[in-house]
Amino acid sequence: MSGKVYLVGAGPGDPELLTLKALRLIRQADAVLHDDLVSPQILTLVSRTAQLHDVGKRAGQKSTPQEAIHFLMIELAQQGLNVVRLKGGDPLVFGRAGEEMEALRRAGIEFEIIPGVTAAFTAAAAAQIPLTMRQTASSLLMITGQFADERPLPDLQSIVKSGTTIALYMPGRNPHETVANLASAGLPRHTPCAIVSNASAPTQQIVMTRLEDLPRVGSCPKPAILILGEVVERAKVNGIDLNALAAELPPGIVGTIERPSPAQEAVHD
Amino acid sequence: MSGKVYLVGAGPGDPELLTLKALRLIRQADAVLHDDLVSPQILTLVSRTAQLHDVGKRAGQKSTPQEAIHFLMIELAQQGLNVVRLKGGDPLVFGRAGEEMEALRRAGIEFEIIPGVTAAFTAAAAAQIPLTMRQTASSLLMITGQFADERPLPDLQSIVKSGTTIALYMPGRNPHETVANLASAGLPRHTPCAIVSNASAPTQQIVMTRLEDLPRVGSCPKPAILILGEVVERAKVNGIDLNALAAELPPGIVGTIERPSPAQEAVHD
Repeated sequence: MSGKVYLVGAGPGDPELLTLKALRLIRQADAVLHDDLVSPQILTLVSRTAQLHDVGKRAGQKSTPQEAIHFLMIELAQQGLNVVRLKGGDPLVFGRAGEEMEALRRAGIEFEIIPGVTAAFTAAAAAQIPLTMRQTASSLLMITGQFADERPLPDLQSIVKSGTTIALYMPGRNPHETVANLASAGLPRHTPCAIVSNASAPTQQIVMTRLEDLPRVGSCPKPAILILGEVVERAKVNGIDLNALAAELPPGIVGTIERPSPAQEAVHD
Repeated sequence: MSGKVYLVGAGPGDPELLTLKALRLIRQADAVLHDDLVSPQILTLVSRTAQLHDVGKRAGQKSTPQEAIHFLMIELAQQGLNVVRLKGGDPLVFGRAGEEMEALRRAGIEFEIIPGVTAAFTAAAAAQIPLTMRQTASSLLMITGQFADERPLPDLQSIVKSGTTIALYMPGRNPHETVANLASAGLPRHTPCAIVSNASAPTQQIVMTRLEDLPRVGSCPKPAILILGEVVERAKVNGIDLNALAAELPPGIVGTIERPSPAQEAVHD
């Protein structure tokens, strides 16, 4: 009899932001297939007797073809193993779970999806930015800088006018290109922008700027999320008004904070 | 010395979809202020010696004014208590955390935000709908049917053309109005639509239809999330092809599943 596959969201990195269900399934799994974005602390939760497979796809490095992930996942389940396919954040957002579900259905393997905490929420929590706010932002758009297809971005001018916050995942290496893409889709160049790197990790870093000044900020550690919109003006970190800092900082950078995230608690008990 | 306030996401309802950090903070809290949407099972995790305050705001019922929530939260923290402000889903999305953060800053109370699993991800996981999908959907828009301001929706025609999935929170009681609002913002009337009620709870229910046929579906249990877009066509629940069911069901309803969510595990250990 085949085992079951669990497509599990590992959350943003901090092991304490795993769900209880994810923790239980990771501990019980016979085999775990994980992405690069899953933190090493989370991988220590996997049973010593379980198989652990790194099937990461990171730009510019050795990567695992999507079809090879499908093949391995199905083969392990057909051996009767319970398999956890562990993805950073939530599995259904920018995670290619759609393709994996279709492969599992074709193979007749039972599966279940366990949602997780997504990076944009963690980034906003770290920077204390409300993603929606009465009178300011009534909706949230999640986009990615790494499109797999050629379709244009939606009309961001209409988006911003209607009061929508934008969360940009995987902004890419070239900030000039990011600004050009967003501006040509209609996003005003003066839109407030927070860059949150390594949200929830001890190396967390937050920079506040405006869209047009992104190239002046320099490189930020990966993974990073950009939050764009009026709500960014609401961000204050540890009681510091970032906008008030503007005069003291290099031009283009409204504020920059290197704030370690709150002490992480061990989840081994 | 003042206590600290934690704005904590309680996730969608299933206690196993709490994060480990939320569980720890709920157990350690001296006082918990919770919304109506937080499930009774989660409230049983609160310490017996802690204060428990229901500060819910549910349409049509007795509700707590936002200012009263601020007052109570600040007063308890000033008494030196550690306060958990517990919200359904993620606190920064449709949760009025922005106003609460501003009140806490004005009062000089330290606070921290703990992200949570949002209802749209849980709904999509239940219905096995990928929210993003290569070649089909490269972004996700979260909107609400209960706007506090008068701004129009963004141009949904451009949104859908660009390959964006829409998650509509709190769709409201009148499905004719929901259809009219979305259609007048440009959303094609034939857009595939999944209605997911009580996602992750034992009473979970999933209905598949098209936008124009929403009024024919009848009332769905609350809380409900609508998922709109091409990706809905990808949904198959328990291996059943919902589209293939269309001919056997009442007109307008592509498929309907009353599937109990997977057995919930107790989190009291």
